[in-house]
Amino acid sequence: MLETIAANKSFGGVQGVYKHASDATKTAMTFSVFVPAHAKGAKLPLVWYLSGLTCSHANVTEKGEYRKICSELGLIFIAPDTSPRGEDVADDDGYDFGKGAGFYVDAAQEPWAAHFQMRRYIETELPAIIADHFPADMKRQAIMGHSMGGHGALTIGLRNPSTYRSISAFSPICSPAQCPWGEKALGGYLGDDRASWREYDACALIEDGARSDALLVDQGLDDQFLTEQLKPELLEAACDKAGINLTLNRREGYDHSYYFIASFMEDHLRWHAARLGPAAR
Amino acid sequence: MLETIAANKSFGGVQGVYKHASDATKTAMTFSVFVPAHAKGAKLPLVWYLSGLTCSHANVTEKGEYRKICSELGLIFIAPDTSPRGEDVADDDGYDFGKGAGFYVDAAQEPWAAHFQMRRYIETELPAIIADHFPADMKRQAIMGHSMGGHGALTIGLRNPSTYRSISAFSPICSPAQCPWGEKALGGYLGDDRASWREYDACALIEDGARSDALLVDQGLDDQFLTEQLKPELLEAACDKAGINLTLNRREGYDHSYYFIASFMEDHLRWHAARLGPAAR
Repeated sequence: MLETIAANKSFGGVQGVYKHASDATKTAMTFSVFVPAHAKGAKLPLVWYLSGLTCSHANVTEKGEYRKICSELGLIFIAPDTSPRGEDVADDDGYDFGKGAGFYVDAAQEPWAAHFQMRRYIETELPAIIADHFPADMKRQAIMGHSMGGHGALTIGLRNPSTYRSISAFSPICSPAQCPWGEKALGGYLGDDRASWREYDACALIEDGARSDALLVDQGLDDQFLTEQLKPELLEAACDKAGINLTLNRREGYDHSYYFIASFMEDHLRWHAARLGPAAR
Repeated sequence: MLETIAANKSFGGVQGVYKHASDATKTAMTFSVFVPAHAKGAKLPLVWYLSGLTCSHANVTEKGEYRKICSELGLIFIAPDTSPRGEDVADDDGYDFGKGAGFYVDAAQEPWAAHFQMRRYIETELPAIIADHFPADMKRQAIMGHSMGGHGALTIGLRNPSTYRSISAFSPICSPAQCPWGEKALGGYLGDDRASWREYDACALIEDGARSDALLVDQGLDDQFLTEQLKPELLEAACDKAGINLTLNRREGYDHSYYFIASFMEDHLRWHAARLGPAAR
């Protein structure tokens, strides 16, 4: 059962917000979907957008400036939440762990494991719901994200190359095992055995053999988190070593905000669209 | 003295938020300005955007999707607040009067007159600050707004045709003297003498001889406020009678939200730019 929270006409399409009871997280989950105008019966390629720390679906939905270009290109745009929510859900005092900070991980440690099953939610449960309720061509999916969601897009995309044709990120956490945000989150959700972290670390996944034909990253050079948390040089080195064709754009003067993301959203969506093939409208 | 609250690079320009002590309102006032990339020494045409009930500068700044097109066209975009704010400022329990609801009026009634001097603030004080601190060509100004701010744009523009070359609005309150929002606000700020309301009513201003060469209005047909509050047919009738060339676009399926505004922001900005003349970059 999908409950429609909001549906607003925008750029000729419909920006919707939906809610459902999740099997994976055992909570209600909210997500947004933009569906551009399309011919009756048409199936459209889709782009997943995973958000960063403290965000819900709402941040990119309000500030991402993706609807005009998705309308032009005929792309469905999906923005899930970043964690389970609700009174029953465990939380942490920090903004970087617990609610709003699921890290797209299936937690193995209590008290997190009860609800923090975000990998399964994004990789398995939500795609089935999208396929059932929206005019989506599930053979043509791309994935992108910002910061923690950039980490999510990279790791989910690298683990599932036959599902996601292209992967892009704004200011991603490139190696959670090698930064404070990631060490706190992976240690908390998965425990101390760092071997179990490797499938949640883009650089480790590439070291362990994961490949992608299409990787695009934009990173602002005035990003306050650049050197301590994000470390694009680690992804660059891993891709170099593995022979992966990474396009990494370092953007002078840009920060970590949606003012940066919106500036290059069109570039990313056109890049994905070129890899997803023409819209079948 | 202008205090910079935020400055983010976006679409090659700078989205800033600024704060200053206002003479008109006797409070601190916050506004946002987007300045696109430009040659040193260049003066750019500017567009004023007046916001609707409950809004501050932030709503359009985050959701208006104007930066890409302002960058392309070389337009400065200014978003003032909708009322004075602060503990000393009188308020009302309703969302439609008092803070967040200044109606771009110089209040004559107490307790409002002490701070609610929004006409003077927008028409006189803020333009002088903009001229002093930003690369603005004050001979090339346009004004636009949404809902209560559409009313503001129409009335300020109609009263000052030599200042604002073009006027546009999304879902404006077309005749505050003839709708519940406006009757409450004008009655409260100005008192019972309806003659004093006429300079704050676009239709009355036109009846009394105000003219504009360039009026553009977009109105969603699924707007919940359309028939009781906004009444574009009144503006249409006043313009018809006065021989004013109003372009009024009725948009099927669109509501009162920023999802609507963003969809047609580019149209409005291109229309203003055509009337402001080429960017001198």
